[in-house]
Amino acid sequence: MKSHTVTLTMNVPARMDLVNITPEVEKAVRESSVTEGLCLVNAMHITASVFINDDEPGLHRDYERWLEQLAPFDPSPERYHHNRTGEDNADAHHKRQIMGREVVVAVTDGRLDLGPWEQIFYGEFDGRRPKRVMIKIIGD
Amino acid sequence: MKSHTVTLTMNVPARMDLVNITPEVEKAVRESSVTEGLCLVNAMHITASVFINDDEPGLHRDYERWLEQLAPFDPSPERYHHNRTGEDNADAHHKRQIMGREVVVAVTDGRLDLGPWEQIFYGEFDGRRPKRVMIKIIGD
Amino acid sequence: MKSHTVTLTMNVPARMDLVNITPEVEKAVRESSVTEGLCLVNAMHITASVFINDDEPGLHRDYERWLEQLAPFDPSPERYHHNRTGEDNADAHHKRQIMGREVVVAVTDGRLDLGPWEQIFYGEFDGRRPKRVMIKIIGD
Repeated sequence: MKSHTVTLTMNVPARMDLVNITPEVEKAVRESSVTEGLCLVNAMHITASVFINDDEPGLHRDYERWLEQLAPFDPSPERYHHNRTGEDNADAHHKRQIMGREVVVAVTDGRLDLGPWEQIFYGEFDGRRPKRVMIKIIGD
Repeated sequence: MKSHTVTLTMNVPARMDLVNITPEVEKAVRESSVTEGLCLVNAMHITASVFINDDEPGLHRDYERWLEQLAPFDPSPERYHHNRTGEDNADAHHKRQIMGREVVVAVTDGRLDLGPWEQIFYGEFDGRRPKRVMIKIIGD
Repeated sequence: MKSHTVTLTMNVPARMDLVNITPEVEKAVRESSVTEGLCLVNAMHITASVFINDDEPGLHRDYERWLEQLAPFDPSPERYHHNRTGEDNADAHHKRQIMGREVVVAVTDGRLDLGPWEQIFYGEFDGRRPKRVMIKIIGD
């Protein structure tokens, strides 16, 4: 069995943004020389997500507004107990649960076996500092 | 290491419906002859989900109503920027994020290692056209 | 390829609680003697979750309050069709969908390859009875 591990470092200047990382994941799959296997991609930080959806800017604006409705940014310690620790990012810990931590993608014939519109995104909900993404491919 | 890849084609006549695909996944595991490994099942379309929960029609009605509250269908371009592209399915891209894209299930002794009530569902949120589901099993 | 399967039995006395199971998962990885691979951890029951986030009690209170807002406990058959079956736990089936069923974690150099704050939690939403968690590690 082969395995290949890559970590990306993300530097998102905004508090919230969605970044297409499909090319980086495809590159890691090529480097792995795995032809049949599984590829895990996960955020290594707990205020960020990795998810698969459409690369359409309008949809991304919709997601950001929707997540803000479901878990509003509020640095005060009244709304979120977590912000009594001195943090201001409790909302980001909630947004990440909606969007998810990770995706697992099939590798077939040496390539990511994605559907026609599937693209892999890094979802940042508390940016302005470096964070890492794990890519791990195992297979033959 | 063995691997086995199957794609199902789903044709759901309604806009939203939940379909039990556990028998199809079990069949793919048998065909794989994998006895110890992992089985990935994912929607290949970004307005659909694969998830695990209970095969109980009342619960499925509850999920549909709840998802409609969290992300209402609204083809107008006012609520969702995505629908300014000419699409009317922005709500489905949101519902799918709540229910998830994929499940990974253990394969033990040649069978899906599911808990007593776990059943695998395809969740369609923008149906009335064919869509694919990926099943990929790897192991020994 | 090696594989190793462990099931934990959780006995949570409260209806809802979040339990750090990272030490148990690390132990299973050590027992597996897998150095490079993937580790699946999933709830085997459909009113519970396995997820990764921060081990911070304030955040856990925030999650519990937020999940209660998104899917309130209500044993009556009016709010949830599922509770017409005699069950009172429809809310738990919804909460679990928000928090997710499973995590897949990379195993690198014989250890869980977690980010600095990543901890693995069992999320119980209908406790007061034993439930199982699956840990399955595959790799070399």
